[in-house]
Order: sequence, then structure tokens, then C-alpha cells
Amino acid sequence: MADPRFYLVAGPFNLRKLATAAEAEIGGSGEPEQAFLDVRPLAEAGPEHVSFLDNKLYVDEFIKSRAGVCIVHPDSAVKAPAGMALLLTEEPYRGYARVADLFYPVLNNQFPTSNQALIDPCASIGEGCHIGVGATIGASAEIGKNCSIGPNASIGKGCVIGDDCAVGPNASLTYCIIGARVIVHTGASIGQDGFGFALGPEEHLKVPQLGRVVIEDDVEIGANTTIDRGTGPDTVIGAGTKIDNLVQIAHNVRVGKGCVIVSQVGISGSTVIGDFVMIGGQAGLTGHLKIGNAAQIAAQSGVMRDIDPGVTVGGSPAKPMRDWLKEVATIERLVKKKEN
Amino acid sequence: MADPRFYLVAGPFNLRKLATAAEAEIGGSGEPEQAFLDVRPLAEAGPEHVSFLDNKLYVDEFIKSRAGVCIVHPDSAVKAPAGMALLLTEEPYRGYARVADLFYPVLNNQFPTSNQALIDPCASIGEGCHIGVGATIGASAEIGKNCSIGPNASIGKGCVIGDDCAVGPNASLTYCIIGARVIVHTGASIGQDGFGFALGPEEHLKVPQLGRVVIEDDVEIGANTTIDRGTGPDTVIGAGTKIDNLVQIAHNVRVGKGCVIVSQVGISGSTVIGDFVMIGGQAGLTGHLKIGNAAQIAAQSGVMRDIDPGVTVGGSPAKPMRDWLKEVATIERLVKKKEN
Amino acid sequence: MADPRFYLVAGPFNLRKLATAAEAEIGGSGEPEQAFLDVRPLAEAGPEHVSFLDNKLYVDEFIKSRAGVCIVHPDSAVKAPAGMALLLTEEPYRGYARVADLFYPVLNNQFPTSNQALIDPCASIGEGCHIGVGATIGASAEIGKNCSIGPNASIGKGCVIGDDCAVGPNASLTYCIIGARVIVHTGASIGQDGFGFALGPEEHLKVPQLGRVVIEDDVEIGANTTIDRGTGPDTVIGAGTKIDNLVQIAHNVRVGKGCVIVSQVGISGSTVIGDFVMIGGQAGLTGHLKIGNAAQIAAQSGVMRDIDPGVTVGGSPAKPMRDWLKEVATIERLVKKKEN
Repeated sequence: MADPRFYLVAGPFNLRKLATAAEAEIGGSGEPEQAFLDVRPLAEAGPEHVSFLDNKLYVDEFIKSRAGVCIVHPDSAVKAPAGMALLLTEEPYRGYARVADLFYPVLNNQFPTSNQALIDPCASIGEGCHIGVGATIGASAEIGKNCSIGPNASIGKGCVIGDDCAVGPNASLTYCIIGARVIVHTGASIGQDGFGFALGPEEHLKVPQLGRVVIEDDVEIGANTTIDRGTGPDTVIGAGTKIDNLVQIAHNVRVGKGCVIVSQVGISGSTVIGDFVMIGGQAGLTGHLKIGNAAQIAAQSGVMRDIDPGVTVGGSPAKPMRDWLKEVATIERLVKKKEN
Repeated sequence: MADPRFYLVAGPFNLRKLATAAEAEIGGSGEPEQAFLDVRPLAEAGPEHVSFLDNKLYVDEFIKSRAGVCIVHPDSAVKAPAGMALLLTEEPYRGYARVADLFYPVLNNQFPTSNQALIDPCASIGEGCHIGVGATIGASAEIGKNCSIGPNASIGKGCVIGDDCAVGPNASLTYCIIGARVIVHTGASIGQDGFGFALGPEEHLKVPQLGRVVIEDDVEIGANTTIDRGTGPDTVIGAGTKIDNLVQIAHNVRVGKGCVIVSQVGISGSTVIGDFVMIGGQAGLTGHLKIGNAAQIAAQSGVMRDIDPGVTVGGSPAKPMRDWLKEVATIERLVKKKEN
Repeated sequence: MADPRFYLVAGPFNLRKLATAAEAEIGGSGEPEQAFLDVRPLAEAGPEHVSFLDNKLYVDEFIKSRAGVCIVHPDSAVKAPAGMALLLTEEPYRGYARVADLFYPVLNNQFPTSNQALIDPCASIGEGCHIGVGATIGASAEIGKNCSIGPNASIGKGCVIGDDCAVGPNASLTYCIIGARVIVHTGASIGQDGFGFALGPEEHLKVPQLGRVVIEDDVEIGANTTIDRGTGPDTVIGAGTKIDNLVQIAHNVRVGKGCVIVSQVGISGSTVIGDFVMIGGQAGLTGHLKIGNAAQIAAQSGVMRDIDPGVTVGGSPAKPMRDWLKEVATIERLVKKKEN
């Protein structure tokens, strides 16, 4: 159960409303007017709860579950226990995401608001915003409607933030233009100078960094992640892309739409990443690469060459996944042979 | 010498008190009432100082040292210079840790306290706390006795922090329950949303994250480390575990007791780690793994399978250490053979 | 064009002044009194702009460029389009860095100043400083002249910061002595406890960390980077060294002068790094190593042994670059042979 110290549950909601939210059909013993109080995992749910089955590893828990209603794929409906209502959809986990969002909708402000927030008189703040104590907002910055700015967050001069955004505590934003419904987590640093130097044998000269960071709609940026602003061109994060914690994105990188970038990935300067690319944790990409749409990069890969659309790579230096797996197997066989 | 600009030394302490602290026997020319002023490395210590020998690399420095008293293993006592008092223990470095803590005991507050700390009237703060300027504490949060909260730290609604804890400057804590004697360093982010999405070909839906972070007693968490809260279950860090800087711990991870997790390690969601596991720097673990008690994971390993208790692994993909070392040697031989 | 929302351009400047700044000779059709308004990339520049050619990949853009003046190597002068003024130098990118710094000179303060900055009455602040709102400065700290301290930055008791330094928003500095012209970016954590424990089978004892962080002149430290203070000796960063984002530098590490350390590198305790060493992204170094002057370490390397001056290494475990490249090639050949 979500700890009421932190979470406030909405509802109850009847099955009709849940089906609409989940984009699912009512099945099993479901009655449209039956009401439900909360979401729960299969093993913990009772008759008043909504649960879901998405991963076949959990079919046994599904068969034994006491959940009142379960969001499942139509193929699994036959295994449902007697008396369970069903919400049938091809995409049960996505259905669950929408239903859980119905029960826990509030942009959950964890901090007091205060007039001590230090807002420049020339900044503009939209209606319905929640500005945490200690947050500072620079001159001529523009914050959209219904945004939540965490305590001790720092938003620099001229930054633009769209509607319905959330910026976490202690995050720092400068030189950036941000769309709607963007989430920036705790401690993220966005817009600081890129690592740009004219190297020399006696001293390295700093090159002024004159671009911005442009973040499109529906992006999420993880805690303590860093995104440097461009050198003159902008650093760009495409709509709907999700970035995990402690990721480094260097100056002039362009990330496409709908990408998923897992924790501790590093992307070097000026690399261009297509749409719906998946990058596993701790992978590194050198600079000036082109990564095609829907490419997949395994965790800890070291990518030093362009990747064609749809190709999956692994290893360091990274190569097509099949080749990398063959290498791993070949070396293992070789060691065994030596031992015999 | 510890710079007096930053450090305040306690003492003097006599040898009897030092022996008690170090859990050591007095040996050599030691007189129980003799007083000492400070700790120093072997090469810098004089007659008024306490030093220690733990690593055999430093035996030569021990033989030449002018330290008044030295914490050593009984086996090394014969090499002590004439006139040196000894504190004999099987664990000299642990003895030194306790003695140094005697000389430098104060929870060293580096920042002014101020009534400008922005504490919700419904939060409760224990006796003897030091709340740094600019720190904010949310509604119904509970801070134990004798805690130090750094300046500009953000502690969210409902968080519970036990006695004798220290939270560093600019750290952000939300949705977390923390035991006693826990240290959270500068800039750490604890309790933010995990990286949970229902992925889709057109958009990725955010899945509400409804759990907490539970941190048991005596844990230390490094600077700019990130620990995501659970999806519904909690993310848990077991008692006495020490976590270094820039580590990523994903939602639902359970770390056992007494683990040591070095800098820049990444642990993916729902992985369960036993007690007294050691994880070297920059190692990565995929999700849903089980790591047995006292397992050891070498730096930069890429762990993709469960590890049995007590087993040491290395490499990426990680395998038992002996196998990995054989691979490294086999490849080196192969290259040499090609060259001849 | 640099977005005027964020950037204020200085100038105009005549060619004579630009030549002096760039340490270049006037060539082509250049007239010393001709004035220029701004910098631009080759493809975007018009007659009123300064551009540069440093990378041969861009020769075609140079040939077609409409830039009024271009900073180039003398060898490229013959390819200049008719009517273009030239600034001839052996080091065009360094020349550009100096010229761009002329047009965008201001230490660009992105945040309001306020008397709400929480400065201990015993701290000393030099003339011309800009202290951001919410920044806190501890007792007896000393800030030099013309420094910029970001909002919500935390500077601890006794810290010393030289002239012309910039500390970013939400950065945390304790126990450190910093030279002149140092830049510390957003969210960096400097001076916190190193990861020092006397390990034990039942509990790990914390060892008091009694040193400092000493940062010499002209160092730059990236966003969310962490530098632990020494155990008793200091952690030292040499003059002119540039450190990228999310780097970890452990206690007692000594980095020499003019090094370049790319994002997400981790350097373990007590390792000593010479001058002008280059370390690629995500590389890791174990503790107590000696890395010679001008050594180069490839991205993602795992360095476990000392490196001689001038040697380049790669791979994990790292070895001389030639050997590593041979290994990579040998394994690829082996896999292909198996397939035939």
C-alpha cells in the first residue's frame, strides 16, 4: 500500500471509468458500476483493488490473486480466477500506468510554498504554480501554468518553461527553453558550459559556449543528470524522451523523440541520436556520431562508430550484437580448450 | 596536521583512554598516564602524537618513526623503535579509526544556523539539531535528536530521520524513512521517482512510483549519489552499508547489511543484494538479479547473472574471477603468438 | 546567433584589435580599421562576422563562406574566397577562443543578487563579488575579488576562494582552498568526506577524514562532479586542469597541471597523476597508481597499473594502445575464422 504519509489516493472509481482510462474492454465477471479503491500488486490485492498482469513470470500469482479486477492481455483471460473482473487490453502495463495515474494524480508537492521564494520582479509565473521555498528565478524567465518548482531550485535569467512542468529540489537550470509536461528531477544540472577548450601544450583556453539547451514536450530528466548547453548550436532533447539519473549529455548533442537513456550513460559532444533509440546503463558514445532511429545499445557498450537504424550493438568497442555475442562465446571456448 | 581552519582537535588523552578506545593492550614503553595531543602519520609524528601501522609497505617508516605511541599488530611489536609506546591490537586500522574519532569527535558544522531555515510548522525537530540556513523541511517530517541538516538541503513531507544523522548541503530527500547515525553527503538525491515507464512505439507512459526509500542504521551515502524510491515495494539499504559518490540505485533494489559500494556503481531495478557484498567502482548490475552474501564484484564488471554467496566475479559480461583472469591471459598469449 | 535572451554581445571590434586578441597576422583583404559585430560558424557568417577554420572537415564550408573575416592556419589561406579578410595563426581554434571571449566577456550572472544571501559576519568577501540569492558562506571563509557565487551554493567554514572565480548554483564547497580564476559548475560537491572505512566482518568503522581539497589557479570543475577531501594529506588539483561533469576524484588523489579529465571518469584514492595527462570518458583508475606526464588514457579504460610518461593506454584491464588494438583485431579475426 502506498504510504499515506507520502501519498494521497483519489477515487473510488467504478469499473467503467477504469476501463476508459486503461483503454480496455471489461471482461470476466466485471460490472461497470462496481467501485474500486486503490491499485495493488497481484499478491497483495483484495476485492476492492485493481491489479495487472504483464509479465508471464507472474501468471501463478495471477491465478491465485484475490484482486477485484485485473488488467490483462486477452490471451490470459482464461486463466483468471473465478469472480475476478477483467480489463482486457493488448497493453496491460500501459493500461496500469494510466489507471495508477487516476488514483495518484496530484502533482505531489512535498514542500511548503513561501513568499521567500526569490523571484526576480521581471520573471513571469503562470497561474497555478507552486514555487518551493528557497527557489530562485532569474530576470525575464517565463514559467508556464501549473508548474511545480522544487525548493532551492535555481532557474536562470531568460529560461522558458512550458505548462505543467515539474522541476525537482536543488535542480539548476540556465540557458534553456523547455516545453510542456517536462519533469526535471532533483539535483539535475541543465544548461551549464559544455567542456569546450582550445587545448594547448601550456594552457587550455576556454571557448565561450553560446548556445542553449532545448527540451521538447514530455521529456523526463533524472536526478543529478547533467546536460550542457551548445557551443553555438543548441543541445536538443526530443519530445517524449526519458533520461535516467546521472546521465551526461555533452554540448551540441541532439537526441531524437521517444528515446530511453538509462542511468550513467555518457554521450559526447555533437553526436546525433535518432528517434526511439534505447541506450542501456553505463554505455558511452564518442562525439560526432550518427545513431539511426530505433537503434539499441546494450549496457556498458563503448560506441565509436555510427549505428544504422534498427541495429542492436554491444561490447566495447561496440559492434553488432550477434558479433559481440560470438566473440564472448569464442573466447570462452578458447579458454576451455586450453584447460583440456 | 589537520588544518585548524577547518578542524578542532579534542584531548589531550592519556594512554589508558586511548587503549580503551582502540580496544588495544598497552605495550612497548607505554605508561598509562602519559598524555597525547593529536594523531599523525608515521613520518610526521613526534613524541606527543599517536600513529598507526597497518600496511606492511610502511614498516620502514615505522622503524624510523618518532611517534610517541603507535597502534600496531602484536607481530610488529619487535620492530618498534626504542622508547615508543605501543597499542597492540589485531586490527590496527580499526583501532586508529576509533582513536582519531576521539580526537576529532564533533559533528563538525561548517555552516551558520539561522532561523531562516524554512521548517513547516507541522514538522518535528528533535533536541540538539543543527539546521543549516536555507534548509527546508516539509510538513509532518520528523527529525531525530542531534541531527545536522546542511544548508539548502531539502527534506520532503513526511520524511523520518533518526537520531544522530547528518544530511549534507544541497542534498534532497523525499519519500524516505531513515534510521539512526546515517550520513547523507552533499548533493545526494534520495526518494525521487524511479525510471518506470510503460514503453510504447509512439509514447512512453510514466508509471506512478508509490513506494519509499528505507535506509537502516549506520548507513553512509556519498555525494551526488541517487537512490530512487520503490514502485510500490520499497527500495531498501541495509544497516551499516557504505555507499560512495555518484552511485545509482534504482527502484526496488534491496541492499543487505554491511555492503561496500564504490563510486559510480549502477544497480538496476529490483536487484537483491545480500549482506557484506563488495562492489568495485563503475561496476554495473542489470535488474532482477540475486547477489549472494559476501560476494565480491570487481571494478567495471558487467553483472548479468545471479552470483552465489562468497563468489568473486570480474569482466563484462562478468564471470568468476578465475575464469576472467584466464580469459585475459589467453587473449594476451594469443596476440603474442600471432606476432611471432 | 547567441540568443539575446541569455547573451549580451560586446563590440564592435576592428580587425587590428581582433588580430591582437587572436595573436594572429592580418592577411587576405583585411583592413586594420574594418569593424566586426559578432562571431558565427562558417556557414552562418556574413560580412560583419568573424569565423574560424580549424578542422579540415570544414574546408568546403570555408571556401563557400560569406564571413567578413576568418581565423585560419596560413596553409589554408590560398583557399579563402575572394574578399575575405584573414587572421593567420598556427592555432586557429585557440585564436577563436580568445576572440569569442572578447565578444562575450562578461561573467554572465544569471541570477539576482540579494541581501538574503546568508553570509556569516566573520566571512570576508572581496570587492566586486556577486553573491546569488540563497547562497550561504560560513564563518571565516574568504572570497576574493570579482567572484560570482551562484544561488543556493553552500560555501563552508574557513574555505578560501581566490580572485575572479565562479561557483555555480547549488554547488557545495567545504574544507577547500581554491586559487584564482577557478570555475566550479552547478551541483559540484567538493571537500566532503572521502570513502574511508576500517572494514570489518561485522561493521565498517568510519575513519575521520582530516585533510582538505587544494585547487590551483585556472582549474575548471564540471557539473555534479565530486572531489573528496584528503584523509590527512590533501586532495590536489593542479593549475590549469579541466575536469568535466560527473567525475569522481577520491581522497588524496593528486592531479598535475594542465590535465583534461572527461565526463564520468573515476579516480580512486591516493593515485598520483602527472601533468598534461588526458583521460577519456568513463575511464576508471584504481588507487595508489602513478600516471606519468602526458600519458593518455582512452575512454572506458580500466587502469590497474602505473603508466609511464607519454604512453597511451586502452582497454580494461588497460594496456598500451597498440597491444589493445591488436587484441581487438585478433579476436575479430578468430571469430571470422570460426565462421568459415
